[in-house]
Amino acid sequence: MTRQNAFYAQSGGVTAVINASACGVLQTARQYPAQIGKVYAGRNGIVGALTEDLIDTSLESDAAIAALRYTPGAAFGSCRYKLTSLQQHRAQYERLIDVFRAHDIQIFFYNGGGDSQDTAYKVSQIATQLGYPILCVGIPKTVDNDLPITDCSPGFGSAAKYVATSIREAAFDVVSMCRTSTKIFILEVMGRHAGWIAAACALAAEHEGDAPHIVLLPEVAFDEARFLAKVDEAVGRHGHCVIAASEGVKGSNGEHLAASASRDAFGHVQLGGVAPILANLIQAKLNHKCHWAIVDYLQRSARHIASETDVQQAHAVGRAAVEFAVAGKSAVMPAIRRQSDDPYRWDIVEAQLSEVANREKLLPPEFISPDGFGITEGARRYLAPLIVGEAYPPFKDGLPDYVKLKNAAAPKKFTSEFAV
Amino acid sequence: MTRQNAFYAQSGGVTAVINASACGVLQTARQYPAQIGKVYAGRNGIVGALTEDLIDTSLESDAAIAALRYTPGAAFGSCRYKLTSLQQHRAQYERLIDVFRAHDIQIFFYNGGGDSQDTAYKVSQIATQLGYPILCVGIPKTVDNDLPITDCSPGFGSAAKYVATSIREAAFDVVSMCRTSTKIFILEVMGRHAGWIAAACALAAEHEGDAPHIVLLPEVAFDEARFLAKVDEAVGRHGHCVIAASEGVKGSNGEHLAASASRDAFGHVQLGGVAPILANLIQAKLNHKCHWAIVDYLQRSARHIASETDVQQAHAVGRAAVEFAVAGKSAVMPAIRRQSDDPYRWDIVEAQLSEVANREKLLPPEFISPDGFGITEGARRYLAPLIVGEAYPPFKDGLPDYVKLKNAAAPKKFTSEFAV
Repeated sequence: MTRQNAFYAQSGGVTAVINASACGVLQTARQYPAQIGKVYAGRNGIVGALTEDLIDTSLESDAAIAALRYTPGAAFGSCRYKLTSLQQHRAQYERLIDVFRAHDIQIFFYNGGGDSQDTAYKVSQIATQLGYPILCVGIPKTVDNDLPITDCSPGFGSAAKYVATSIREAAFDVVSMCRTSTKIFILEVMGRHAGWIAAACALAAEHEGDAPHIVLLPEVAFDEARFLAKVDEAVGRHGHCVIAASEGVKGSNGEHLAASASRDAFGHVQLGGVAPILANLIQAKLNHKCHWAIVDYLQRSARHIASETDVQQAHAVGRAAVEFAVAGKSAVMPAIRRQSDDPYRWDIVEAQLSEVANREKLLPPEFISPDGFGITEGARRYLAPLIVGEAYPPFKDGLPDYVKLKNAAAPKKFTSEFAV
Repeated sequence: MTRQNAFYAQSGGVTAVINASACGVLQTARQYPAQIGKVYAGRNGIVGALTEDLIDTSLESDAAIAALRYTPGAAFGSCRYKLTSLQQHRAQYERLIDVFRAHDIQIFFYNGGGDSQDTAYKVSQIATQLGYPILCVGIPKTVDNDLPITDCSPGFGSAAKYVATSIREAAFDVVSMCRTSTKIFILEVMGRHAGWIAAACALAAEHEGDAPHIVLLPEVAFDEARFLAKVDEAVGRHGHCVIAASEGVKGSNGEHLAASASRDAFGHVQLGGVAPILANLIQAKLNHKCHWAIVDYLQRSARHIASETDVQQAHAVGRAAVEFAVAGKSAVMPAIRRQSDDPYRWDIVEAQLSEVANREKLLPPEFISPDGFGITEGARRYLAPLIVGEAYPPFKDGLPDYVKLKNAAAPKKFTSEFAV
């Protein structure tokens, strides 16, 4: 392999550990100076490649790169910009190849979810067609844990640890207050299609009767009467009820509960979540005082309570991606393979992008308890190791001390603009 | 002083460190076996005294008591049950004295906010009137930081650290995404009357331009046009805008923004917060994609990210309360006195309950920036030391390992019930 430049881009919603993958990529690339030349990063993901806004990562110090391991967000910026078929986005794909060619880039690392793995796969195809072959290596990332092949997705374990910790702590609050005040607490978490994050909330329950008492998953159709009966039962038995609700909970008509209330009588869009809808329902039908929280971006940014296991895996897939490229592999993605649950053992294997792209891994039926309001022991065995270990960032003046990179732009080769 | 039994109760909304105060009370009481006999705790606060549901804390191990230092919630249960004037609640006050007398309780520790300090003060008065003098010592607690006399209130520093950490982390997310997606993030925090928690969010900003770019306080009337102009300016300058909003933000009519939208067109009560209202407004008027979070109970329960300074102060006021009682002092409360900002030095002094009761400390005008959308350097100097230091709880299997006490009931002396 001759010395080649590389391009690295972060894609889609960020996680607490996507920068740990960036750290793995950049640290490992620096260990292969004979094989890898410059590593450029896309400012705001693939948009940076299209607009030729490339960040020269060689200008970042080793210390700054090391600090990415404990810094949340996407250090180079991410984007929501989906490249679909070669027909529909041919101009974009060609532009990518043009920019890569102009900067002598022959390796493309794309750090994202299913859509991004699909894009990486397509780039590898069109590059060959256009006579400028590029090694395309996907790097898995998603808090939603919905990527196939890989046993889990980096980013999920930290979100899982955050929500399980948060609901355990909130439950200590509710149980303290329920005698004379709030009896119901609802935590709404991410997961529009897959209920992995909501399922992880159930890890907070160690003993029978512990919170959460109800987990609402997008995989299970919401049944108002059964739900209210379950709430009532929990309040009767424990004096309170703690609920973990996925934002993607759907009614039996398949429509999102949150979406169904998203317009008021005047047709105004109401930004809201499923938690206030459930709270309204409980208040109206059971007359219990409710509190609810929607943690939104916090659950995917809370690096202060990241899972050490997740951080290690995020770093490992970044490292493996570079090693795959150095070995000349293309259209592949490092995947996490579980060797055993307890003790938890894992390693990194090679997955084909063609098999990863555009497939969504939902919570399997055997992970959902028979009543649909919780998870099984099998799910618990799967989830438990993913949140193990604390990986605290350094603190300064009482707050996490995260790094901001210089992110200096590489000189442009093109004079023309490309609209995105 | 002859050997006396004591009663300890937790009151009102809990904090991440109210149990650290309980720990201070119980550990210190065990160091004075000649002066203090049994320490009973009220199950669910003062309600436990009224219903004669007393917890015998002597049955808890030293290890369990020590673990209260890092356990959130109210270990004995709290309540929202306000005793007002002696005329209005004479039966309740008399019942308290009856129960105390029956269990030979001559010391009353009441751990709560302004209302609780008022109750403790009234108990001391009526006890004397009824010929059964009780040493009444208040112990400060509130996330709202609105108690007078004491420089800060235990509970606030940890909530402050949690919200400042959370908004800093969420800002890393928004800045990553703003090129093609979310440009606005709103974090709604507690503070119905006093804006201390929202003000603490501003600690996340270290340099000019850092998030949060706007802080909305209940002390400043909300002006829609000025707010939108400020959002627009931030987006123009930084590409995104992060907003910390106090739940208690009010319009110029003095009405809460959240309350004003609390009924829909059909008159149905809408449980909501100020964050979705602001998000709707920005979306409608400026057409920026918004995300928002409401952390609710999480901010007062997040023991995993508690401030070490806050933990130390919470423990110190518990310890001092016992020392006051042993010294025969009554109708007093340990207060935190600030000796210097930097280096931060503090000690515990004696405050009179008569001066603490029923006075709410709002954010002073000199802590609010001239434009009303932020805090001053003076506010920063005041707030900064309160969040310093990490006091991580132990973790087991990836989650905080909090203690649950035995909470065994002491035998009752009365056969009659008392309705609360």
